[in-house]
Amino acid sequence: MSVLIVGSTALDSIKTPKAENPRLLGGSASHAAVAASFFSPVKLIGVVGEDFPKQYLQLYKRHRIDLEGLQILPGKTFHWSGEYELNMNNRRTLLTELGVFETFTPTLPKAYQNAAFVLLANIAPSLQNHVLNQMSRPKFVAADTMDLWLNIALEDLLKLLKRLDLFVLNDSEAHQLTKEDSVFAALKKIHKLGPKYVIIKKGSHGSILSSPKGFFICPAYPLQNVVDPTGAGDAFVGAMMGYLATAKGSVEANIRRAMIYGSVTASFCCEGFGLTCATKLKRTQIEKRVKELEKLTRF
Amino acid sequence: MSVLIVGSTALDSIKTPKAENPRLLGGSASHAAVAASFFSPVKLIGVVGEDFPKQYLQLYKRHRIDLEGLQILPGKTFHWSGEYELNMNNRRTLLTELGVFETFTPTLPKAYQNAAFVLLANIAPSLQNHVLNQMSRPKFVAADTMDLWLNIALEDLLKLLKRLDLFVLNDSEAHQLTKEDSVFAALKKIHKLGPKYVIIKKGSHGSILSSPKGFFICPAYPLQNVVDPTGAGDAFVGAMMGYLATAKGSVEANIRRAMIYGSVTASFCCEGFGLTCATKLKRTQIEKRVKELEKLTRF
Repeated sequence: MSVLIVGSTALDSIKTPKAENPRLLGGSASHAAVAASFFSPVKLIGVVGEDFPKQYLQLYKRHRIDLEGLQILPGKTFHWSGEYELNMNNRRTLLTELGVFETFTPTLPKAYQNAAFVLLANIAPSLQNHVLNQMSRPKFVAADTMDLWLNIALEDLLKLLKRLDLFVLNDSEAHQLTKEDSVFAALKKIHKLGPKYVIIKKGSHGSILSSPKGFFICPAYPLQNVVDPTGAGDAFVGAMMGYLATAKGSVEANIRRAMIYGSVTASFCCEGFGLTCATKLKRTQIEKRVKELEKLTRF
Repeated sequence: MSVLIVGSTALDSIKTPKAENPRLLGGSASHAAVAASFFSPVKLIGVVGEDFPKQYLQLYKRHRIDLEGLQILPGKTFHWSGEYELNMNNRRTLLTELGVFETFTPTLPKAYQNAAFVLLANIAPSLQNHVLNQMSRPKFVAADTMDLWLNIALEDLLKLLKRLDLFVLNDSEAHQLTKEDSVFAALKKIHKLGPKYVIIKKGSHGSILSSPKGFFICPAYPLQNVVDPTGAGDAFVGAMMGYLATAKGSVEANIRRAMIYGSVTASFCCEGFGLTCATKLKRTQIEKRVKELEKLTRF
């Protein structure tokens, strides 16, 4: 089965203490779609401007990503610019130019409306809801978010939460949403808002799943050197959804292993700027790190 | 085999956002010794003043901790007072009264000198070295430390590192010592300073072992509510050493499982002030959480 992914498709200008890279292919949907493509066919929903480099369209196509849902509109592509601090954990936004993204109204092609697995990657919750409104009953719906929407669109987000199977957010967002300091206490509270599955991402500390079968502590793959963590969270959930869409058996039976695949795919994302490493990746490299993670956690 | 433990034996006055508890039994050696006592006999080296409550001596004895090495000297017991912030991760020291600890010179009773497993819990590295000087060849020597010694006694600490089998420190200390942001890069550098085994503690994010057989990612036990994390790191390494001292087979074969036992014992430590929870603990409760951790990490 294929995964439908909606989110931002952007140009990212990223500055780290060691390098500066302008106008890389970025955005939550780009990172998630490329990551998912290692496991399943992907249908992309997004919008770019006429300035969007052809090479990036080629990149999507090399990953067999269905672009019927990608709108190319007069105007400029969403452009984000950010700078990382020395420890690569803290970043600040230098610039946000919304461009054609400002009036983005995702419209689903017919062929997309029956998708079984849906990933609402990070965009405004009103748009995430709008996409769901156009679908017949998907089998499994996941969404990611960011602190911005907790601040300015909480009501829309709470509406969305009631429609999700899986909600993914990071630890500081979970704290912001629930006021709980313990991620385990936060997870319990988030279930009450709707989703059956909740995952809290903790960056290099891994992630935690709460599901009807209890918690799962998912490790991050050990990296000696993080080049650029932009999009790692999107790659994590993208790979997860790609894995789930093609794995045999129930979501409940596969979700832990899906997270491990997400964790490994995200690790490759961190090892290069933008999508540099992820696009050169082979499935065999992913499998190798999954086996390593098995050894690293066995006791 | 028994574990010899040297470190601080103190009275802790602890303030959290929810409660205030004066003059609890505390100190690195107290927490480590009680935790180790669930697994093996313990020989304690420390110093207290004449004001040290008799009930605390009784507490050690109830845990069958050998007190031949505990000096009771004229003067006051080391007293530390600290306050935790709302999220229980950050704390600040309000008061440090060294008392008899100021001139502490650990002297090993004869019966202690042949101990096979030695834990140099957090005290000045000069004292940790001094204890090792009095021993015939122990089988396995572990040491913990704190940021203070990195600041004011780095030379002594570097001397100590060359004599250790296992060095345990937390992530911010590892960064301070190596200037590396990645814990995995830091671990590699610390091996070059001497120890064959290095563990970096990351509080609620678990811990990482680096050993000749590679890395091990050890989870923390999921806690909904942390009452008082004081001494959790000491309990972790104390329980680990107790487990190693009595487990059949090599240290290499047992160290991962020892960390899991350390992690679980530390979780109980966090659930009450001072040693409240730890002292009421039964081995069966530890085994139950170890089994739970197995389930929580399996994929």
